[in-house]
Amino acid sequence: MSDTTCGATDDSNSNNDGSDTETAIDGGRGGETATDSGCGGETATDGGAATEAASASSSACGANDASNASSCGASKSATTDEAVGSTVDDFDADPGRLVAVGLGPGQPEGMTGRARATLLEADHIVGYTTYINLIPDEVTEAADELYDTPMCGEVSRTEEAVDRALAGHDVAIVGSGDPNVYALGGLALEIVESKGATASALDFEVVPGVPAAQSCAARVGAPLVNDSVSISLSDHLTPMDEIESRLHAVAAEGFTVAIYNPWSRKRRENFERACEILMEYRPADTPVGVVHGAGRDDERVEIVELGELESLGETDLIDMTTTLLVGNEETYVWDGRMITPRGYESKYDY
Amino acid sequence: MSDTTCGATDDSNSNNDGSDTETAIDGGRGGETATDSGCGGETATDGGAATEAASASSSACGANDASNASSCGASKSATTDEAVGSTVDDFDADPGRLVAVGLGPGQPEGMTGRARATLLEADHIVGYTTYINLIPDEVTEAADELYDTPMCGEVSRTEEAVDRALAGHDVAIVGSGDPNVYALGGLALEIVESKGATASALDFEVVPGVPAAQSCAARVGAPLVNDSVSISLSDHLTPMDEIESRLHAVAAEGFTVAIYNPWSRKRRENFERACEILMEYRPADTPVGVVHGAGRDDERVEIVELGELESLGETDLIDMTTTLLVGNEETYVWDGRMITPRGYESKYDY
Repeated sequence: MSDTTCGATDDSNSNNDGSDTETAIDGGRGGETATDSGCGGETATDGGAATEAASASSSACGANDASNASSCGASKSATTDEAVGSTVDDFDADPGRLVAVGLGPGQPEGMTGRARATLLEADHIVGYTTYINLIPDEVTEAADELYDTPMCGEVSRTEEAVDRALAGHDVAIVGSGDPNVYALGGLALEIVESKGATASALDFEVVPGVPAAQSCAARVGAPLVNDSVSISLSDHLTPMDEIESRLHAVAAEGFTVAIYNPWSRKRRENFERACEILMEYRPADTPVGVVHGAGRDDERVEIVELGELESLGETDLIDMTTTLLVGNEETYVWDGRMITPRGYESKYDY
Repeated sequence: MSDTTCGATDDSNSNNDGSDTETAIDGGRGGETATDSGCGGETATDGGAATEAASASSSACGANDASNASSCGASKSATTDEAVGSTVDDFDADPGRLVAVGLGPGQPEGMTGRARATLLEADHIVGYTTYINLIPDEVTEAADELYDTPMCGEVSRTEEAVDRALAGHDVAIVGSGDPNVYALGGLALEIVESKGATASALDFEVVPGVPAAQSCAARVGAPLVNDSVSISLSDHLTPMDEIESRLHAVAAEGFTVAIYNPWSRKRRENFERACEILMEYRPADTPVGVVHGAGRDDERVEIVELGELESLGETDLIDMTTTLLVGNEETYVWDGRMITPRGYESKYDY
């Protein structure tokens, strides 16, 4: 297991695929020493994201300065001529294109050829600062403009991308992982719709990428080879009782489970509840792949047992940069790898 | 929606990500005019795959000649010095490396940079003929040897890859999609284990790729943006009562559902049962993305309603090359795209 990643690679507060969305909404947190102070999430919620936007600076909010709760959700910086909140009628130009691009695991080599080609064709590239920084220089240098904001501006950043496309530019909006996995594909479409524009007029496309579940799974072997579920423990956009109900449903069946956003100081209870629910249905020695800070300097990959998972919530191993891969009843550990059989062995003699 | 793919691109009988595995086991079928005759699956099951291997020819079994039920499962062709069924003790050489590489959507531009680099470094590239053919010439030409077999030889082909690595070669075994999604990641590890070798000695790695669920989802917009499930309707390796139980469990919750291997003539009943189960829990107007033959000449992408899905089983739209993307109760269709909201709209005003 060497060089790929399934998250972001800087030291700021990031997460695997979809994290941009999640952490933006949940508010920035200060790296390992997470706190509930921060910006973006709370501020945007209180103030109404549609009339606010992240400042265009790339200084982090919620990254290294957890006490800085004001730099996100501030008034919009004048980086385009169009006001945020504008509708399709405010634009005279022939619209450009809008493409939601999944960057995959978070390092340039995890990007597909199509993602790279799409970025090279774009006039403007829009995204969370961390992800923009992951794009190779020769790609970003080919763009006319980059628009990057810290994680706290998910909604306003996406609106900015839509406005730029409506203003006639070919725009790529980027995120790690895949745009369909807790990420910006749907948000972009929702904002296009809210502006009275159409996806067709913007020739809207989604360029898929490798999701965090897959890139993290690869690091521990073959944990997800059978029917599998992705579930997020963030209760910011989904009520916790629904999350619990979903966990009950899938834990009772033979699904392997990829858990996104397993833990934050604010959501310690969610992680504990998830562990308890899984333990109701699966043996304590069920293998769980734990991938922390994938691709970052503090990356750690461990295979643990379900019975010890809850106690690990107190350690640095599990935070918002962690993805969990929970085996099913057939999953076993061999030579440092998790293996979930597909059933070949019962059919074939080898 | 233009150019990426989530399946194979030739005219032979292939399927999306994981299909290699699935169709290999279920037996080849003759393209659109599927039949239950074929080879591989049945033959291998009857005969014991471990002592058999696909012939190394790239002529298709089950591709265009559905009546050809004999060319798979034949005795092993002498492409290496080692007999299939050998164990680690049969090899004198220092072992080489074994890497399971996900090619992604099935066209070169869907491959990650890391997948490409890994293939360029490999001495031998092993895979289903269809997928080997998808790799750019400049990559395959850099390899010392290609070993490709028709779809019917999944187990024996994987064993061949392991044997070649044990014999000292650096081997890449390839499949479409991701090695963790109904694919060869686990099988490779199981075979390494069965031979008394270790994954560590072979420096075994998995290079992730874009799964079919993601590349097909991209074609219909943003259908999978919330918690999601992948489930295969193939009952060859999983009993149908388990599949049904899983469908009940997830349909009752808010999961979006990506359905792999939805239909074959042999498994018409499974598809019908799946439709019936989904209809027990979700409204008839629930959007379902249907992606048939992605990346092939006969590609078709449609968004239909759940209530009409079962009747489409009688049409060419749904076969083993089709992936289904079933929305949840919040999924809607707008401007030709499926959108599954994440809940931003209830939190933010836009």
